[in-house]
Amino acid sequence: MAKVKKQPRPKAETPKGFRDYFGTEVSERSEMLSQIAGVYHHYGFDALESSAVETVEALGKFLPDVDRPNEGVFAWQEEEGDWLALRYDLTAPLARVYAQHRNDLPNPYRRYAMGPVWRNEKPGPGRYRQFYQCDADIVGAPSVAADSEICAMLADTLETVGIPRGDYIVRVNNRKVLNGVLETMGLADDTQRDAVLRTIDKFDKVGEAGVRELLGKGRLDASGAYIDGVGLTDDQAAPVVAFLTSRGDTAAATLANLRDAIGGSDVGAEGVNELETMAELFDAGGYGADQILIDPSVVRGLGYYTGPVFEAELTFEIFDEKGRKRQFGSVSGGGRYDDLVKRFTGQAVPATGVSIGVDRLLAALREKGRIGSNPLGPVVVTVMDRDRMADYQDMVTELRNNGIRSEVYLGNPKNFGNQLKYADKRNSPIAIIEGGDEKDQGIVQIKDLILGAQIAQNATLEEWKERPSQFTVPRDQMLAKVREILATHNGETQGA
Amino acid sequence: MAKVKKQPRPKAETPKGFRDYFGTEVSERSEMLSQIAGVYHHYGFDALESSAVETVEALGKFLPDVDRPNEGVFAWQEEEGDWLALRYDLTAPLARVYAQHRNDLPNPYRRYAMGPVWRNEKPGPGRYRQFYQCDADIVGAPSVAADSEICAMLADTLETVGIPRGDYIVRVNNRKVLNGVLETMGLADDTQRDAVLRTIDKFDKVGEAGVRELLGKGRLDASGAYIDGVGLTDDQAAPVVAFLTSRGDTAAATLANLRDAIGGSDVGAEGVNELETMAELFDAGGYGADQILIDPSVVRGLGYYTGPVFEAELTFEIFDEKGRKRQFGSVSGGGRYDDLVKRFTGQAVPATGVSIGVDRLLAALREKGRIGSNPLGPVVVTVMDRDRMADYQDMVTELRNNGIRSEVYLGNPKNFGNQLKYADKRNSPIAIIEGGDEKDQGIVQIKDLILGAQIAQNATLEEWKERPSQFTVPRDQMLAKVREILATHNGETQGA
Repeated sequence: MAKVKKQPRPKAETPKGFRDYFGTEVSERSEMLSQIAGVYHHYGFDALESSAVETVEALGKFLPDVDRPNEGVFAWQEEEGDWLALRYDLTAPLARVYAQHRNDLPNPYRRYAMGPVWRNEKPGPGRYRQFYQCDADIVGAPSVAADSEICAMLADTLETVGIPRGDYIVRVNNRKVLNGVLETMGLADDTQRDAVLRTIDKFDKVGEAGVRELLGKGRLDASGAYIDGVGLTDDQAAPVVAFLTSRGDTAAATLANLRDAIGGSDVGAEGVNELETMAELFDAGGYGADQILIDPSVVRGLGYYTGPVFEAELTFEIFDEKGRKRQFGSVSGGGRYDDLVKRFTGQAVPATGVSIGVDRLLAALREKGRIGSNPLGPVVVTVMDRDRMADYQDMVTELRNNGIRSEVYLGNPKNFGNQLKYADKRNSPIAIIEGGDEKDQGIVQIKDLILGAQIAQNATLEEWKERPSQFTVPRDQMLAKVREILATHNGETQGA
Repeated sequence: MAKVKKQPRPKAETPKGFRDYFGTEVSERSEMLSQIAGVYHHYGFDALESSAVETVEALGKFLPDVDRPNEGVFAWQEEEGDWLALRYDLTAPLARVYAQHRNDLPNPYRRYAMGPVWRNEKPGPGRYRQFYQCDADIVGAPSVAADSEICAMLADTLETVGIPRGDYIVRVNNRKVLNGVLETMGLADDTQRDAVLRTIDKFDKVGEAGVRELLGKGRLDASGAYIDGVGLTDDQAAPVVAFLTSRGDTAAATLANLRDAIGGSDVGAEGVNELETMAELFDAGGYGADQILIDPSVVRGLGYYTGPVFEAELTFEIFDEKGRKRQFGSVSGGGRYDDLVKRFTGQAVPATGVSIGVDRLLAALREKGRIGSNPLGPVVVTVMDRDRMADYQDMVTELRNNGIRSEVYLGNPKNFGNQLKYADKRNSPIAIIEGGDEKDQGIVQIKDLILGAQIAQNATLEEWKERPSQFTVPRDQMLAKVREILATHNGETQGA
C-alpha cells in the first residue's frame, strides 16, 4: 500500500520583522504607558484611541499610478474596492479624527494616544515592523505657548518614567529660523535650496567642517567616495554654518547669534522671536538649561515641521553591540505642523505635538538596570497525591485571599522533579509540599527556593546546616511561614 | 482663464465597521484591562503580547483553491509572496507562540493576553470589525483542576471589575457528556449526528419543546416557515432532551440526571466524572452555586471544545434598543481544546482557557451606571493678556505641582466667551481670570463653574446672592481657594 502523503505542517513563526513580548516585557511597558498617560492627563490632555485600520485615502499614502498603495504601509483592498491600511503613526489618524469630529471636539483639542503602529519596511536588527508610539498633540493652538507646554511635559514625562535630570535633554530649534537663513543666502533656485536642506540633514553625521565642504566643492566620505558639493562660495555658505553652530553658553547668546545668522529676513526674525518666547516660558515654568535647551544644531525633522521643532535625547553613555561607548540618543521628537487637517477640510489648523518611542525608552531603562530584573514568580503548591487536588486548591485559595500570588502545579504530577523544575523556571520563591504522611500528621513542607539556590551555590557545610531552606510547619501555620519567608526576600517582588 | 480643477479632498471617515474611542471610553477600558490583568497575575499567569500580524499559514485560514484568503480575516500578500493577516482572536496566536517557543516556556504555560482583534465581517449596529479580547489560558495542563481554576478566576475577575455576586453566573458543561449522550442514542450515521448537533445549538432559542420537535418531525418557526426535523423517534430523542434539561436543584442532582442520560457510555461517564471533580473543587475554593453552576443547558461552544465548556452570563435585566427588558447575557466563554498546538507539532497538547469580551463588560457597567459619568475636566487658566503667557504658565505650574490637573487656554484668546465655552466643553470645575487690573492689584478671579451652572439652573435670586460662584482672592491664595472649591465638589473627580 502506498504511503499516505502527509500534509505539510504550518511553520510556527512570527512574520518577518515582528516579534512577541513575554511577561515583564509586557507589564513593564504597560506600567510605562500608564505613567506617561498620567502625566499627559495631568496636563489636561484627553485620551483618544482610533482604530488601527484607516482608509488609504485618509492616510494619504495612495499613489494613483500603481495598482496598490506604495511601500511603507501594510495595505489591502476591500471587496467593494476601498483600500485599507494599518496606521503607520498616530498623527495621520489624529488628522482624520479631528477633521471628522471637529464640531464635537473642544477647541483647542488636547489629546494623547498610545498604541502600536506598523511600517512595511525591511526589518533589521532591533528594527521591527510593529512598535509602540505614545503621542500628545494640541490641535487648534496657534501660539508657541503650546509648543513650550509640550516641551515641558516631555521633560516631566522623562523624569516620571525614571530618567533623572542630567540624563536627558530636550533640544529646541525652529524651522522659521532656517527659512530666514535660506532667504538671506540668496540661493539661485529651488534645486539649490533643496540641496542645502539635504546637506543640513547630514550635520549630525559630518559636523561643521563636513557641512562646509558639502556646501562648497564637495567631500571625500569615509568610504573613499567623492560626494559632490552644492557649489556655494564660503560667503554664501556662511549663514547656514552660523545657524548650525549658533548655540551659545546661554539662551540669550544663542538668540543673539541666530539674529546675526538670519540677516534681515522677516520670517527668520519671527522664528527667533518664537524661540525667545519659548525660552521665557521655560524659565517661568522653572525648567533649566539642563532640561530644555535652545539648540539650533537639532536638524532632525526640520524639513517636516513648520515652526518649533524639538527632540529629547538621553545623554548617558551605553555600550553598543560592538562594545563601543556611545550616547543613547533620541527617544522622542516633535514640533509644529500647521497643515495637519488642511487636506481634509481646506482650512489650515495650527497643531503641535510630540511622539515618544516607548520601546526605545524601555530599552534605555533596561540598559541602566532600572527595570528588567527577573521578578519572583508565584508560590507553587506541588501535587503529591492527584486525588487530593481539593486540598491543594484550598491552600492556594488561602494564599491568594491573603494577597499572595500562587498556584497549584497543573502539569502531570507523576514526576516530582518536573514540579520543582517548573517552580525554578517560574522563579518561584516558595514550593509547598504535602504528601500523604504530612496530611496524616497535619503538617506541610515549605521550601524556600531562593535561599535553597543561594546555599547550593555558595554555602559551606556549616552554613548549610545552620540555615535550612526547608521547613516543616503545621498546616494552619502555612500562611504565616510563607509570609515570613517572602519578607526575608524583600526588595524582590512577585512581579511579572 | 480657465478655473484650476480642484483635487478632490479625501473623506475624513473611519473605515466601515471601525470606530474611535474618546476620553473616558479609553481610560475606563485601560482601567478595566489593568484590573483584569491584576487578577490573572495573582493567579500565576504571565503576560504575553504577540504581534497583531500573523502569517495566514499560522492562523490556519488559508484556502488553497482561491487566490486570496477566505472571508473572516483582513489579509494581504507580501511582495515575496507570504500572505499575512490581522489576528482574529488571541487563541490562534497562542498556539503559534507555544509551538514556536515551547522549549523555553514553563510547562504548564499560564499566559494572559489582552488587545484588539480584527474580523473581516459585515459590520452592524454595535458590531465592530475591531474589538478587544482579554484571554487567559493554561497550556500543558491535562487535569480539570485547570478548568476549575479558570472558572474560579473568571468569577473573581467579574467581581473585581464591579459585577457583584448575584449579577453574574458562570455556567459549566462538558462536551464529553454530550458525546456520551450521542453514543447512547445509536444514531444512524455522521449526517444524523451533525443534524442532532445543529439542533442542540438551537436550544437557547427554541427551548425544550422546540428541540423535541426539531429532533422529531419538524417545526413551524416564528416566521411561518416549516423547518424539517431530524426524524428521530421520541425514544431516540429522549437522551439528548434529558441531557439539555438535566439541571437539578443541586450539583449532585444534576450529576445524577446526567448519569441517566448517558446510559452506558464510557466517554459520557468520563465527562460526568469531570464535572463532579470540578464541582468538588469549586466547593473547596469556596465558590457557591450563585457563582459557578454545573448547567448542561449551556450549548454555546460545545461543538468547538473537547471537554469542559464554560460561559459567564450577566443576569441583571437591561432595556434593549426597543425598550424591552431582557437579560444582559454572555460576556465571556471558554473551555478545553486539546489539539491547540497539534497542527504545528503533530503532538496533542492539553489546553484550557477563557476569553472575556471587554467591550461588552464595559457596556454592562455603563448600563448599570457604575462607570461612564462625565468626570470633571482640568482647571482652565484663561488668557486676558496674551503678552503675559509666562504669568499664566506660572499659575498652571503651581497648580500642577500641587497635584491639580490644569492648563492655560491655548486657543486664540481674543474672544473671552470662547475661553469659557472651552472650559464648559471640557467640564472644567474652575476658570481662573487675571486681567491687567487684577494683575496691578495682585489678585485673581476664580470662577466655580459647577456651582455657577447649578445656580444658573435652579437658584432663586436670594440664593444667588448668598452663594456667589465667583471669588476674588490675592494671587498667593489662588491655590488654597482652588483646593477649597474642588473639595466642595467631592464625589466628582478630575478624570478623563
